[in-house]
Amino acid sequence: MTLNIGVIGAGRIGKVHAENLVTRINDVNLAAIADVVPESAQELARRLRVPKATAHYQDILNDPNIHAVAICSATDTHSQIITEAAQAGKHIFCEKPIDFDLERIDNVLATVEEAGVKLQIGFNRRFDPNYARVKQAIVSGEIGDLHLLHIISRDPSPPPISYIKVSGGMFLDMSIHDFDMARFLVNSEATEVYTVASVMVDPAIGEAGDVDTALIVLKFANGVTATIDNSRQAVYGYDQRVEAFGSGGAISTDNVYPNMATISTAQNIRRDLPLNFFMQRYVESYLNEMQVFVDAVLNNKPVPVTGYDGRVPVLMGLAAKQSQLENRPVLIEEIG
Amino acid sequence: MTLNIGVIGAGRIGKVHAENLVTRINDVNLAAIADVVPESAQELARRLRVPKATAHYQDILNDPNIHAVAICSATDTHSQIITEAAQAGKHIFCEKPIDFDLERIDNVLATVEEAGVKLQIGFNRRFDPNYARVKQAIVSGEIGDLHLLHIISRDPSPPPISYIKVSGGMFLDMSIHDFDMARFLVNSEATEVYTVASVMVDPAIGEAGDVDTALIVLKFANGVTATIDNSRQAVYGYDQRVEAFGSGGAISTDNVYPNMATISTAQNIRRDLPLNFFMQRYVESYLNEMQVFVDAVLNNKPVPVTGYDGRVPVLMGLAAKQSQLENRPVLIEEIG
Amino acid sequence: MTLNIGVIGAGRIGKVHAENLVTRINDVNLAAIADVVPESAQELARRLRVPKATAHYQDILNDPNIHAVAICSATDTHSQIITEAAQAGKHIFCEKPIDFDLERIDNVLATVEEAGVKLQIGFNRRFDPNYARVKQAIVSGEIGDLHLLHIISRDPSPPPISYIKVSGGMFLDMSIHDFDMARFLVNSEATEVYTVASVMVDPAIGEAGDVDTALIVLKFANGVTATIDNSRQAVYGYDQRVEAFGSGGAISTDNVYPNMATISTAQNIRRDLPLNFFMQRYVESYLNEMQVFVDAVLNNKPVPVTGYDGRVPVLMGLAAKQSQLENRPVLIEEIG
Amino acid sequence: MTLNIGVIGAGRIGKVHAENLVTRINDVNLAAIADVVPESAQELARRLRVPKATAHYQDILNDPNIHAVAICSATDTHSQIITEAAQAGKHIFCEKPIDFDLERIDNVLATVEEAGVKLQIGFNRRFDPNYARVKQAIVSGEIGDLHLLHIISRDPSPPPISYIKVSGGMFLDMSIHDFDMARFLVNSEATEVYTVASVMVDPAIGEAGDVDTALIVLKFANGVTATIDNSRQAVYGYDQRVEAFGSGGAISTDNVYPNMATISTAQNIRRDLPLNFFMQRYVESYLNEMQVFVDAVLNNKPVPVTGYDGRVPVLMGLAAKQSQLENRPVLIEEIG
Repeated sequence: MTLNIGVIGAGRIGKVHAENLVTRINDVNLAAIADVVPESAQELARRLRVPKATAHYQDILNDPNIHAVAICSATDTHSQIITEAAQAGKHIFCEKPIDFDLERIDNVLATVEEAGVKLQIGFNRRFDPNYARVKQAIVSGEIGDLHLLHIISRDPSPPPISYIKVSGGMFLDMSIHDFDMARFLVNSEATEVYTVASVMVDPAIGEAGDVDTALIVLKFANGVTATIDNSRQAVYGYDQRVEAFGSGGAISTDNVYPNMATISTAQNIRRDLPLNFFMQRYVESYLNEMQVFVDAVLNNKPVPVTGYDGRVPVLMGLAAKQSQLENRPVLIEEIG
Repeated sequence: MTLNIGVIGAGRIGKVHAENLVTRINDVNLAAIADVVPESAQELARRLRVPKATAHYQDILNDPNIHAVAICSATDTHSQIITEAAQAGKHIFCEKPIDFDLERIDNVLATVEEAGVKLQIGFNRRFDPNYARVKQAIVSGEIGDLHLLHIISRDPSPPPISYIKVSGGMFLDMSIHDFDMARFLVNSEATEVYTVASVMVDPAIGEAGDVDTALIVLKFANGVTATIDNSRQAVYGYDQRVEAFGSGGAISTDNVYPNMATISTAQNIRRDLPLNFFMQRYVESYLNEMQVFVDAVLNNKPVPVTGYDGRVPVLMGLAAKQSQLENRPVLIEEIG
Repeated sequence: MTLNIGVIGAGRIGKVHAENLVTRINDVNLAAIADVVPESAQELARRLRVPKATAHYQDILNDPNIHAVAICSATDTHSQIITEAAQAGKHIFCEKPIDFDLERIDNVLATVEEAGVKLQIGFNRRFDPNYARVKQAIVSGEIGDLHLLHIISRDPSPPPISYIKVSGGMFLDMSIHDFDMARFLVNSEATEVYTVASVMVDPAIGEAGDVDTALIVLKFANGVTATIDNSRQAVYGYDQRVEAFGSGGAISTDNVYPNMATISTAQNIRRDLPLNFFMQRYVESYLNEMQVFVDAVLNNKPVPVTGYDGRVPVLMGLAAKQSQLENRPVLIEEIG
Repeated sequence: MTLNIGVIGAGRIGKVHAENLVTRINDVNLAAIADVVPESAQELARRLRVPKATAHYQDILNDPNIHAVAICSATDTHSQIITEAAQAGKHIFCEKPIDFDLERIDNVLATVEEAGVKLQIGFNRRFDPNYARVKQAIVSGEIGDLHLLHIISRDPSPPPISYIKVSGGMFLDMSIHDFDMARFLVNSEATEVYTVASVMVDPAIGEAGDVDTALIVLKFANGVTATIDNSRQAVYGYDQRVEAFGSGGAISTDNVYPNMATISTAQNIRRDLPLNFFMQRYVESYLNEMQVFVDAVLNNKPVPVTGYDGRVPVLMGLAAKQSQLENRPVLIEEIG
């Protein structure tokens, strides 16, 4: 059987999913592309020879031959489109985050539940071969019982101040990926958060009411302790690593590099900087998550990243923020 | 401007080029697919929404709207299809090798020359980010003047004996890539070849008249010495590395791995085996070489791997064979 | 000029210092060895051809030709011997810790101050080439301004329970090295400590009143945040690493290995386990710290690890313990 | 039992052996030191508290309480001192090479044989932990049957031209270590040598009648092929590596570094240059070889590097030279 799918949003990430759907994902047919900028939808549809392009995502939701949608539109449209898609009976893949408002998230999840459709959230890093390998080591017992987890997650450079003002702050726009990763790898729920954060990269970030450097400690219900180390700026590039330590050993990941060359000169022994852009760094993860979604729908299997998985990291981000403000460990249950 | 291209051969490598042409190569339109097995052409055309599928490559050569072809058919059809395509005025990308017969190669090259079309040979490894980085280090002077080059090129496991019997032997079916790489990196012509070769992997290979393990030494006109280390079987996987040593330093490449994880246990500190399959290992090179071909045709630039570049490695393979048989250094000019 | 030195304590660490003093440290003369077990002193003196061996360290303190002592005796004798040595006018190198009692430490330091002799504490890791390289990167500006520091410090296996009962606990017997390292690298004083600790390795350690796994967060006066990750048992061996992240880059150290060999098999790509024993791992540091002490005495230069540097980590250990008990960040100034 | 040993030659390497004998080698007593420069012998003896220093090595040979000697004097004295020491009934450790003249070597070996004393040649690299680990992998079957061996051996900078004029040439003064290593690792005898060599580092070396860059191919009786890659100058430091490839896997060694730090900056990911000086790089090997010699004498076990092992590499060097001159593979049996 073939799944007919529509992509909503023909921007950067929409293009990635559309290309993957055409060439590298099995059992799927990219049937339509929508974008509020009609030319964007048309251009992408033309290049990939997709039969239908529209400026109105409702055209996709109303098409009875389309079984599922991939929502790649602006974040502030996610809640609304998920709700309508669920009501139209479409299975839903939606880019993260669902929303930053807990109540709105809860309403969306209730609608999806009621509609009985599948909803998968695009926490793509879970499908990156590096993190997936760490998960495998933990689940398989290769490193014994997990004791400690360190997540390093640093961006190459800060976003524009204009973005910082509306992003919800570093804990909600950046650490949120790491909260999901911590839950995914530890396989338990965080119970308590302690945060040390400051402005070390750019005073303008502080003036905008945010921090740019943070160290977050998470206690999990199963006894594991995790740290998240965030910075808005690692001058050597996108720094995305993890180290898991257990009773039987440890596993750690290095960054991903554009090549495997080592250069030796009279100055030093060196290699080129790691992949700098998240879409290169995580290219395989986008492919993998979509293949899993298609399989889940076609074979009625559970999706690996649920709406609930989209909700919890928001909770953790709010707790991290509160811990920073009050300089004390904050219980997750204090938040919601 | 957009280049209309047809793909001839819808097998493993034809699929790779077709997918890249549809999604990731700029300024190109995949207009038709041919394969002697009509279902293969049709299935690929359907999936990628290519308007024309045919069992006869002549349909592509006769189409006046098609400017170029990518020949991905069986090796023994290359000479014939290149010749016809050139006579039809199409620009040509052709998978390696052109042929194993020097006279036939020369005839093909003469026809291409006469027709005034572009011919690019698919020595894809030149476009792999690792080898390309080594080339850059050499050309830019990052390691000074090149003195010595080592190429390690080992397959994960031997091909079937049936293949070995018709392949032309290890020097022509396997080392040929390394001869091209040596020429590419040294940027000079080999003048002399010395070969030590033996059967160490499987006696059946010897019974089929071939060797499975070889060490080849090449002297180049510019004074550089290069070695090629070939084995039909590296049990840890596809081993493809190079080390270049020069007056100002050295550059070496490691293999490519499915992940960047290091696992530490009570036994050892380890990582997973490198990518084992050449199509995974060299995935980016197929994309890059085709983009360069399209650009060369559209902008009337020289192709980076010419018909002549397809001829010389055959010459070197024949010299390597003769050196092994006679246990002496053999001059390239003794061969042709 | 030559410094005449006596070694007090001919155990494991005393032997290391004695051998280094005889063969590899310049401008020094090992004049006498004392040990409460007379045979130990005699055997070491005989082997190294040291003229004087004694069961009474006072014999060394009373020798007017001896200018300095290296105290390598049991921890609970340090305070007493430092005091007597200072009163005898000897310059003092003393193995860590001075004591676990803050008041006793303060008395010792006052006596040393009054006597006007030099006192260097044996925080040898500062002199390890790896940590020294990290320090250099921070001091020289190679990684810009320091933002975050991670210290990984895991033992290969827990000490006997009998030791744990009298050691002062993990924060004072193990983390103390890491507190010193954090101060050394951050080049500032910790103001606040937050600790998460648990028993994950061996319940008997918990029954003895101690923890075996800890994550400690330190805030420093200069704004840097540091973490210390301690475990009593890393099954892959002695795990001693650091990562420093700054505005201009990062520096991280790997463990030290018995060889630089990589083995590739059909199972994995691997290397042997790191050096497992602290005396092998830190062999160069013992040499370096003693050379620096000898130079400081001979040339009247400040010692690099003062009595004060011996006091502060004890303070930090006590704060870490209190933070764990009360589950809150504890200010250093709350302790003393 | 304790072995009384005398060191002949108090230069750079003599000091290393003397220090090791005093502090780190078991069951041995350094009884005397000789050097033609009396002050050198006296200074070393004084520092290490060795009872006897002399300008005449005969004083050591005539001392009935001394059982063995370590010959660390100038190369052109080795033959003579070995001969006299053997005649005096002393067991002999002698730095490489015995001599560059095959006839003189044969005479020396005959004398040693007749005297019934042990003779160990100082091919120290066999005892380096890296090469020893490669040997272990080959002997234990960890990489299956050996197929190919690559030895990289490059000096940081060329010796003075004055040395090159008298050294016997690169094949005898530098490659000789690699010939020994090849024999040691392959565990067979070379039967044929093919050499490509040239002057690429410094024309003055060519004017002095030598080469500075060489690629040597060795065929061994057991079917293994080995290459040696020599250069007088690797600008990034002392480059000493090996790669062994077999039916069950491969083992390769990296250089040894002063620290295990990785620095990441906006320019690159780098580490410091490898250890540059052979005495640092091979520090453990000198200790290990001497311990083995002492044990062999005390327990009447065979020495691991015999006089014969000192002879064969000279033969291989002469063959390599002839191959270069005649541009053909040369059989070892053509030489002697």
